Amino acid sequence: MQIGFVGLGIMGRPMVLNLLRGGYRVHVWSRRAESMTPLIEAGAIGCGSAAEVAASCEIVISMVADAPDVEQVALGERGVVEGARPGLLFIDMSTIAPSAARRIALRLEEYGVEMLDAPVSGGETGAINAALTIMAGGSQAAFDKALPVLQCLGKKVTHVGANGAGQVAKACNQILTGAGVLMVAEALNFARASGVEPAKVREAMLGGSAHSRVLENHGQRMLERNFNPGFKAWMHRKDLKIVLDEAHRLGVMSPVAAITAQMFNALVGGGDGERDSVAMLQLLERMSGVDSE
Amino acid sequence: MQIGFVGLGIMGRPMVLNLLRGGYRVHVWSRRAESMTPLIEAGAIGCGSAAEVAASCEIVISMVADAPDVEQVALGERGVVEGARPGLLFIDMSTIAPSAARRIALRLEEYGVEMLDAPVSGGETGAINAALTIMAGGSQAAFDKALPVLQCLGKKVTHVGANGAGQVAKACNQILTGAGVLMVAEALNFARASGVEPAKVREAMLGGSAHSRVLENHGQRMLERNFNPGFKAWMHRKDLKIVLDEAHRLGVMSPVAAITAQMFNALVGGGDGERDSVAMLQLLERMSGVDSE
Repeated sequence: MQIGFVGLGIMGRPMVLNLLRGGYRVHVWSRRAESMTPLIEAGAIGCGSAAEVAASCEIVISMVADAPDVEQVALGERGVVEGARPGLLFIDMSTIAPSAARRIALRLEEYGVEMLDAPVSGGETGAINAALTIMAGGSQAAFDKALPVLQCLGKKVTHVGANGAGQVAKACNQILTGAGVLMVAEALNFARASGVEPAKVREAMLGGSAHSRVLENHGQRMLERNFNPGFKAWMHRKDLKIVLDEAHRLGVMSPVAAITAQMFNALVGGGDGERDSVAMLQLLERMSGVDSE
Repeated sequence: MQIGFVGLGIMGRPMVLNLLRGGYRVHVWSRRAESMTPLIEAGAIGCGSAAEVAASCEIVISMVADAPDVEQVALGERGVVEGARPGLLFIDMSTIAPSAARRIALRLEEYGVEMLDAPVSGGETGAINAALTIMAGGSQAAFDKALPVLQCLGKKVTHVGANGAGQVAKACNQILTGAGVLMVAEALNFARASGVEPAKVREAMLGGSAHSRVLENHGQRMLERNFNPGFKAWMHRKDLKIVLDEAHRLGVMSPVAAITAQMFNALVGGGDGERDSVAMLQLLERMSGVDSE
């Protein structure tokens, strides 16, 4: 099967390699031509545009930064619709607003292109190890067609519902991971300010009902004071903006997401946008006069 | 070994039964004499006061509601110090403020009684199944002496640090579980408001970095709309008050704990104090006009 892939960044690159390992013929395009070179060397076919990618493929995947990029790739000049044969399946794996995903899906329908929103969780490590969590929204037929391809990229693939449902699940996921990072940072900062060893407190909590993957993984990195990404603070902030925009649109109260977004504003505003979101611990330390040295 | 136990409520009762099963001679006292009857039938020895309990024992455990109750049991009229022989170990397993635990420990020292603060996580089920998570603060000698007894009550016993450290760990635990319940409720409410099946969203998230025990257990109860305690909302609210009082005293910023406490105020203020904290979902639904039927 011929698969197209547009967006060859930190996530896209290892995903293309996994598709090649899975035996697929992969046609790639990136705005920055140099991103294609190592993938072409690994066996991918370089193209001159998203339209050219689409012309050769049954499935085109995009993995880009935000909704305008997805719109450009799908519907813009030299975009997917300009090359697509009827029946093409477009899978957007970027994290964008559910409403944007639904809007793009509707527009694509006019061209006979079906869309699946299939955002991921698991970050660069998950992308490299084909261990992503994938949350898909779209028709059952589209999901069934996509499943073998998605299973080549992730360990857990869930069909959440209709178009946009994948992005809704991802938004929920980002509430839990964003607020998770903040509350673990709060707890460890509270422990240190109380004169108690944070590592011991984390150890005590790991066995019980406070256990979470964030306490396990992000908590460990906080203790090691390893603030390298991982998942950059500005990206988590962007995802929380999606949650709050949707919450506003729907009139849904989401108080923890709101305060978490404010803390990410402070983190990014304070110059830590390129660091991992676990740098939240240092922000709380500064704000509480806690000496971590 | 002779062990005393004061406070025979939902938690204390099954804990005494586990100590009896462990082969200990258990001396019990409760303000409400009728609480003692089933335990006496099970082999415990009923007493007329905490002082009388202390007179026969090497270790006295208390499991009561709040700091004033612990103070009364330990230092009040006919309290532990009035019966204690020197070298007695007093283990308070209630959840109280770290500063109160330190203060009571200091007062007990004057009477030659050593104290361990050893609050628990795991609720009634954990108490019944001897599967509590126990977080202990006190000297190494006190911890070593208590350990076999604590292992009879819980699965995971951690020596966190000096007096008060157990309560600090419990406070951190309650940040994570309280905010955890709120953020899971937020995510499931957001999903439903977005027209997506909350069960599917939870399923999609469980495999990835958003995984937590709260999403697993409390999330499941929210989906089943089972709001029976479990852990009552007013108790979680009390625990968050401890966190925020300490945060205030220390000048430590804890934004998620603060907003969570406000939401528990609304939950308890709205008449749901006796229900499980997962009733938070219904509060959010009401506040967002989400129809869950």
